[in-house]
Amino acid sequence: MQKKLIITNATVVTPVGNSACKGADMAKLTVIENAAVKVTDGIITYVGPAAGLIIDSDIDYSLIDAEGRVVLPGFVDSHTHLIFGGYRPDEFSWRLNGESYMSIMQRGGGIQSTVNATRSESCDALADKAQWFINRMSEMGVTTVEAKSGYGLDTESELKMLEAIDCLASTPGQKLNIVSTFLGAHAVPKEYKGRTGEYVELMINEMIPAAKGKAKFFDIFTEKNVFEIEDSRKLLKAAREAGFELKLHADEIVTLGGAELAAEMGAVSADHLLHVSDEGVKQMAEKGVVATLLPLTAFALREPFAPARKFIEAGAAVALATDLNPGSCFSGSIPLTIALACIYMNMTIEETITALTLNGAAAVGMADKIGSIETGKQGDLVMLEFSNYRMLPYYVGMNCVNTTIHKGNIVYEAR
Amino acid sequence: MQKKLIITNATVVTPVGNSACKGADMAKLTVIENAAVKVTDGIITYVGPAAGLIIDSDIDYSLIDAEGRVVLPGFVDSHTHLIFGGYRPDEFSWRLNGESYMSIMQRGGGIQSTVNATRSESCDALADKAQWFINRMSEMGVTTVEAKSGYGLDTESELKMLEAIDCLASTPGQKLNIVSTFLGAHAVPKEYKGRTGEYVELMINEMIPAAKGKAKFFDIFTEKNVFEIEDSRKLLKAAREAGFELKLHADEIVTLGGAELAAEMGAVSADHLLHVSDEGVKQMAEKGVVATLLPLTAFALREPFAPARKFIEAGAAVALATDLNPGSCFSGSIPLTIALACIYMNMTIEETITALTLNGAAAVGMADKIGSIETGKQGDLVMLEFSNYRMLPYYVGMNCVNTTIHKGNIVYEAR
Repeated sequence: MQKKLIITNATVVTPVGNSACKGADMAKLTVIENAAVKVTDGIITYVGPAAGLIIDSDIDYSLIDAEGRVVLPGFVDSHTHLIFGGYRPDEFSWRLNGESYMSIMQRGGGIQSTVNATRSESCDALADKAQWFINRMSEMGVTTVEAKSGYGLDTESELKMLEAIDCLASTPGQKLNIVSTFLGAHAVPKEYKGRTGEYVELMINEMIPAAKGKAKFFDIFTEKNVFEIEDSRKLLKAAREAGFELKLHADEIVTLGGAELAAEMGAVSADHLLHVSDEGVKQMAEKGVVATLLPLTAFALREPFAPARKFIEAGAAVALATDLNPGSCFSGSIPLTIALACIYMNMTIEETITALTLNGAAAVGMADKIGSIETGKQGDLVMLEFSNYRMLPYYVGMNCVNTTIHKGNIVYEAR
Repeated sequence: MQKKLIITNATVVTPVGNSACKGADMAKLTVIENAAVKVTDGIITYVGPAAGLIIDSDIDYSLIDAEGRVVLPGFVDSHTHLIFGGYRPDEFSWRLNGESYMSIMQRGGGIQSTVNATRSESCDALADKAQWFINRMSEMGVTTVEAKSGYGLDTESELKMLEAIDCLASTPGQKLNIVSTFLGAHAVPKEYKGRTGEYVELMINEMIPAAKGKAKFFDIFTEKNVFEIEDSRKLLKAAREAGFELKLHADEIVTLGGAELAAEMGAVSADHLLHVSDEGVKQMAEKGVVATLLPLTAFALREPFAPARKFIEAGAAVALATDLNPGSCFSGSIPLTIALACIYMNMTIEETITALTLNGAAAVGMADKIGSIETGKQGDLVMLEFSNYRMLPYYVGMNCVNTTIHKGNIVYEAR
């Protein structure tokens, strides 16, 4: 028997399309008052005026009366480091006392300290810990998350991380879609300190072949004193040849040309971009590279925010994501992401919604399956407490989610 | 039979004392590892090493195994506008487009638009709406909230608001302590536009006498073009004579001398203080006026944060509160308050904990009853998810609360 969910009395608010919304189109949301949504076997089979809904009387279905509440596409958190061992609260205090992220990293803190903790954890323990964060995400309306490896930094530990991601993705009743990214090029591990070239060779000859087919994306921390442009290009080419789609951590700490490299390599997204050059913005817009902006990280590090308006005005597609990770940004707050985008990056709430839904979907290569409320797309929905979507930025830093729905199943209901 | 709660395996973290912690003392927390806490009939009857706990075997009790988790005093949100009609999401967009809070207020938006909505609501409807926010507060570990009137601005409507507060406070099983504040001097209502003096007279002759005994505190928005210093002094004197304790909204938008007036009048707290003068800081420290800082409001309005370090260095007591209200700061997020205090106001997490517990208690005149985990104080506790209190600022903008306990009863448990 078919499994159906019907939502009535909804205020449906959604971007439309099967690809990223670019530039001025980001502000164009479709709003349907007094709408109904039907999900059949996990797929949206009706969205539109309630009057147009045909209910087959012989089939059981779950019914939600939205009482006028806003129903959005489920949020897509398209950049997270979901899998990690340990925590780094003390390092956070050091940073508050003025030490820089890069200085902590260079003296063996930062990513390396999480690498040590991650290497010593079992796959199951890593997955269990990540599930706790997935539960929090689901409470905030996230129905798709991208999860990176990158705290193993040796073949075995990176594969263990990808296995933990795979394990989570195949958990029965999992609350969201999980997209995996291989980030072996997150940092040069301590064993290769001062021998970046050798680690690059190890990645090309051993790690990328080993990870092949085990993750959808290849990502790299392209940054001064980490993987600079030449090494990044070499690794991205090898990954592309192995069948990975590409992402870059680009121009986060200094202006290095990561955005331009992303455009050159045909990456799906370039992320962070706090210090992107104007030329980088232009090239990303031209080549259709999604600009994934991570305001929580800038906020946590007291850095300037990425130039969202420049990207939108250049006609680029902007996505917003949390960057959940145990170092630079231990957060994951969708409400705070929305607040920062609207109050501090001058994005409108309409652009912000598109950035968290359809453009997030595009950033994980799934815009044809998720990210909008349209027939044929997956039944991933979030119902707010309120009937006005402008409550999202207005209720500053607070969760507006009443119900989260994944593949037509209710996975979270507020008390 | 006595009702008892026992918590074992706790990491107790608390300020100590029956009055505000001032200056450098704010950073001094007592930490007891492997601690036990006993609450008998709502009052803490034991806190200390587990070994010292005597359990009377013949008496029933609830038992919580904290498994090493941090147990803090319940948070005190000592400045909120909990009772209000309507919402103002559109005004929020206007502000994001560059219009100032004072300009919106002067053309009849701002406080007046909430006044219109509040006047037309019943006492029950106002209380029901506020209860929804109380439930959110409880989830974030708040066990005491201060609630102001101030959206009535006529005798009848102000009394209705105080009645709604009283109604909430006396609700059986209420999740927190509620302290009421009469804020008839929140704005000059439209009926008295241009006749501030007459509204001041109305307050002195009718509203203050009518509100007498119905609220613990009298509060006033001392601000340029609202109630300036002379009118504020007159009103505060009348309120003090009527038996109210005093609070001020001081130096929020311009430097007007509100802090100095608070010191002169012996106010319990002066709040906001974004533009406080150095002399105001000094006088508040000398006179023991609690400086209640509201970083969420500054964040939402893109204003500079109040000078927390100046107050601490001057030996003043700093409290932190949310300023939950439907206009300048529709939030109430304790996690974001903590993040802003630690990341943007340079307060340490120890100072921040004191500001949200014992100093919040002092700001509502209850430091002898709540705000720390000591025998004889009320059993208001919050258990975190984690065993390290430094997780609070590190988990940026996210709720770390596992369990909230009010008068020895569990009022919230995380899923």
